[in-house]
Amino acid sequence: MVKAYAALNAGDDLKPYEYEPKALEQNEVRIKVHSCGICHSDISAIDNSWGKSSYPMIAGHEIIGEVIETAPNSSLHKIGDTVGLGWHSGYCNSCEYCDVGDHNFCSNTKKTVFSQYGGFAEEVVAEEASVIPIPTKLNLEDAGPLLCGGITVFTPIVEFGINENHNVGIIGIGGLGHLAIQFYKALGCNVTAFTSSHDKTEFINSMGIDEVVSSTDQVILKDMGAKFDLLISTVNVSLDWNLFLNTIKPRGRLHFVGAVLEPIKSSVFSLMAGRRSISGSPVGSPKNIKKMLDFCVEHNIKPIVEHFNFTDINNAIEKVRNNNVRFRAVLSW
Amino acid sequence: MVKAYAALNAGDDLKPYEYEPKALEQNEVRIKVHSCGICHSDISAIDNSWGKSSYPMIAGHEIIGEVIETAPNSSLHKIGDTVGLGWHSGYCNSCEYCDVGDHNFCSNTKKTVFSQYGGFAEEVVAEEASVIPIPTKLNLEDAGPLLCGGITVFTPIVEFGINENHNVGIIGIGGLGHLAIQFYKALGCNVTAFTSSHDKTEFINSMGIDEVVSSTDQVILKDMGAKFDLLISTVNVSLDWNLFLNTIKPRGRLHFVGAVLEPIKSSVFSLMAGRRSISGSPVGSPKNIKKMLDFCVEHNIKPIVEHFNFTDINNAIEKVRNNNVRFRAVLSW
Repeated sequence: MVKAYAALNAGDDLKPYEYEPKALEQNEVRIKVHSCGICHSDISAIDNSWGKSSYPMIAGHEIIGEVIETAPNSSLHKIGDTVGLGWHSGYCNSCEYCDVGDHNFCSNTKKTVFSQYGGFAEEVVAEEASVIPIPTKLNLEDAGPLLCGGITVFTPIVEFGINENHNVGIIGIGGLGHLAIQFYKALGCNVTAFTSSHDKTEFINSMGIDEVVSSTDQVILKDMGAKFDLLISTVNVSLDWNLFLNTIKPRGRLHFVGAVLEPIKSSVFSLMAGRRSISGSPVGSPKNIKKMLDFCVEHNIKPIVEHFNFTDINNAIEKVRNNNVRFRAVLSW
Repeated sequence: MVKAYAALNAGDDLKPYEYEPKALEQNEVRIKVHSCGICHSDISAIDNSWGKSSYPMIAGHEIIGEVIETAPNSSLHKIGDTVGLGWHSGYCNSCEYCDVGDHNFCSNTKKTVFSQYGGFAEEVVAEEASVIPIPTKLNLEDAGPLLCGGITVFTPIVEFGINENHNVGIIGIGGLGHLAIQFYKALGCNVTAFTSSHDKTEFINSMGIDEVVSSTDQVILKDMGAKFDLLISTVNVSLDWNLFLNTIKPRGRLHFVGAVLEPIKSSVFSLMAGRRSISGSPVGSPKNIKKMLDFCVEHNIKPIVEHFNFTDINNAIEKVRNNNVRFRAVLSW
């Protein structure tokens, strides 16, 4: 039996839960979970905030572990490999997006927490294309959050060709935002952090940020002018998006990677005036996750992590729920 | 004195109005107006819908005419040249956008109808960089609407590198939309027209369109799947934008060139799921207007025009106001 922690009903505390391991299907591998990050979307899954959850819900999708079994026809990984698994646990592997390595745009992805039992468990099974080799130079105890939080904010670099000439703003400095600061500073961008948590300002400044601005200060936002090439929103609450839109340069964009439930309201005049875009992107493809992990090794980028034992999972989730973790929680067996 | 037609108060019928011609300033040219299209934004200017109008308001910004005077230091045009003038009548000519030919992103543009007296007149004055030479092969009586309506829907081709591999949808088949169909079909795109005017369907089909869809048929929209690379909205009314957003392919965009006053509401999940964008753009730069006019000559693209004499201007405006013109009204002296 596989030991896990499951929510039996929406919003419940997690309880120890055991399930029969499933036999591997074609192309699958079985991973022994060493550690697993806690992402806000795990809490959305536990709470059924998106109406997609089934119970028992075993969440967890920032997994670092070791391959312990491979399907006979699989070839990408071998037993003993250190690997990671993020939001997706499989793809169709035959559509126009999978064909060119854009697996995250496949319309038949499997999700680690919605399509199967996830990483708050001793083991997890995934289709080999979604399983990522972890470079030996990464600190395994801290790497989990890169698999979802990290790739989510790294993807815009690749999608939009961001480089040292770009002026980038990060809205919300938490699990995703503190990684975004590291990525975009390592690229050489001018980076502004927008936060409503004034107690984080000192820490954010210590990361070499160019400017820290209150995300709710309408006066400062109005006076900023059109300066950003890219504004990335990592928050899951509604802000005055038109104020942010007006800080964006011609051909720039306000890009959402945080799942705000309320619709984004934007003025067509603001979009038209500066040929601005509003956009969003989902996590990232396996090829970009690999690129990001190499980038982390090269630039010594690390999630800042609070560690918890799996036995303390409900306490850890409570801290994430209340935004009291600095900056990401990771569970280990 | 220059004869013109002006609104003396917001929403008034236009009345004959005469004004003293101004002396040319540096880099300016004086244009004798032969004809001028009527755009919905002229009506917005007359009605003060955007709160930017001053009175007497002399609107009109789809001007075809002849250069009759040039400032001593001007060099781009000579007396007798056939030229056009659109939404912008001047630029700063020294910012980072003007420097590279993206004058329409300049933050100090002059507007033909808001910064000065416009084209519903015998003459108009404009800064030479905003004045466009008209190719001799264009039909001058019909060319006016290209200067605003045309460039507005042509600009996305250049901005987003649209080509024959792209699947394009045009929302709203009126003054802008009927030109968009011609442009994108000439490029070789697969083009779908969205209209709520069922009486236009036969005509639209005659333009070689690939598909005509009712823009308010939620069932058809829901069943379409994610098929468009680019959806261009030319309408100035609110539609169910999330339905349209979900018809867009990964990395595709819903692009606004029609000035909708109500905010656009979009679901972050729809944006994230397919790395979709919502964007807008303002008319176009002089270099792209020239490119468009050459493209029109090459592909025999023409605005479909109802002609009116300037003495019949109030009748013409009434028809535009009621969406009864097929597809663009042009006034001539």
